Amino acid sequence: MKLYDFTLAPNPRRVRMFLAEKGIPLPETVQVNTREKEQFADWFLAINPRGTVPVLELDDGTRLTESIAICRYFEELHPEPSLMGRTPREKAVIEQWSRRMEIEGMGPVGDALRNAAPLFDDRAIAGYASGMPQIPALAERGRRCFDDLLVKLDARLAESRFIAGDDFSLADIVALIAIDTAKRVDLVVPEALVHVRRWVDEMNARPSARA
Amino acid sequence: MKLYDFTLAPNPRRVRMFLAEKGIPLPETVQVNTREKEQFADWFLAINPRGTVPVLELDDGTRLTESIAICRYFEELHPEPSLMGRTPREKAVIEQWSRRMEIEGMGPVGDALRNAAPLFDDRAIAGYASGMPQIPALAERGRRCFDDLLVKLDARLAESRFIAGDDFSLADIVALIAIDTAKRVDLVVPEALVHVRRWVDEMNARPSARA
Repeated sequence: MKLYDFTLAPNPRRVRMFLAEKGIPLPETVQVNTREKEQFADWFLAINPRGTVPVLELDDGTRLTESIAICRYFEELHPEPSLMGRTPREKAVIEQWSRRMEIEGMGPVGDALRNAAPLFDDRAIAGYASGMPQIPALAERGRRCFDDLLVKLDARLAESRFIAGDDFSLADIVALIAIDTAKRVDLVVPEALVHVRRWVDEMNARPSARA
Repeated sequence: MKLYDFTLAPNPRRVRMFLAEKGIPLPETVQVNTREKEQFADWFLAINPRGTVPVLELDDGTRLTESIAICRYFEELHPEPSLMGRTPREKAVIEQWSRRMEIEGMGPVGDALRNAAPLFDDRAIAGYASGMPQIPALAERGRRCFDDLLVKLDARLAESRFIAGDDFSLADIVALIAIDTAKRVDLVVPEALVHVRRWVDEMNARPSARA
C-alpha cells in the first residue's frame, strides 16, 4: 500500500489525520509537491490522470482518489474507533455533517483561495494545470459564505461538543482543515464566536491535528 | 418516516431513484415547491434551517438533510441490492466515482444553472433566499468544466459498462441527474461521445429513471 501525499496540501491531511485518530500507521508515502505543480508531471498523471492528491495505491494495483473515499476504505477495514458511525442513523448523521462542512466550509474556502492566491493564477480549479482564470467575484463570494458558515457552526457547537454529535468524527476533520486552510487567505474565526473557538482549541489539542 | 421532496428538483430525485433501484417503497412525501421558494417558508425552515430539500424525517424525530446521507441511511438498512458497494474496496471505489460525478459533474452544472437562470436571480447559492448575486463568469466556467467532464466520462464508459465498474451504483444516479439537469441550460451530450450516449440510453431504460 502506498499513499501519494503532500504535507502542505489540505486534502491529503484529511487522510493523515483520519489514520492518526484510528491509530493506523501511515503507509509508505510519496510526496507530490503541488506547490511546484508536480501533480501535473507525466509520472504522476500516469498514477492519477485527474492530477490531484491524495491517491491511495492498494497492493492489488487499485488506485483510490478522493480523500473521503480513502477514509471510507480505512473505516471499513478498521471500524474501531469509529469515525464514520456504527448504526445506519449514526452513519447518515456523520455523512450529513461531513458533507455540510465540505459544501458550506471547504467549498467556499477553496473558492476564496484558488480565485485569489497568486499560486493558483490561471488554474483556479483543481486538476487544471493552466487555462482556468481566476474569478475575483467568486473569491469574494467564498469569503462571505465561509463567514456565514462560521456563524452557523457557532450555533451548532453551542449545543454539541463535536460537529456531528457527542463523538469526534470525520466531520470534525473536514471542518478543522477548512478553518486552517482559510487562514491562507486571512479568514479567521472571529473572537465573538466562542463556541467555534472552544472547539478549535479542543481539536488542536489532539495529537492527530499535527499528523 | 417522511420525505420532504420536490418532484422537479435534482437532489430529491437522487433519493427517489435510489429507493426505486432498491425496491423500497417511497415513504410518505411532503412536496416543497422550490420553484415557488417554499423552502424558505417559515414552516419549512423549522424543519430544515438550511432551506434545502430533500429532508428525511425518521420516526424518532431525527431529520437527515443531504441526499447522499439519506441514501447512505437506506443502504445501511437495506444492503441489497447494493448500490454503494459490499467490500471495503468496492465501497471506496463507488464513493470515489460518486464524488467525482458530484465535483466534476453536478458542481459545474449547478454553477452554470444557478449563475444564469432567471429563477435563481439574486440567490445563486442553495440555501440563500436573496442577496447572493449571480456571477456570469462562473456560469461560463461551469459550462466549460461540464463539457470537459463529458469527454472524460466518455473515455471511462468506453472501458466500463457503468461508471464505477461492472455494476450499477450510486455513481450512475449522480451522473444521470447531472446530465439531465444540464439540459436546463442547453448543455447536451455531443453525438460524438458515443459511450456516454450508450450509457444514457441504458440509464433511461431503467424504470428508476422515472422515479
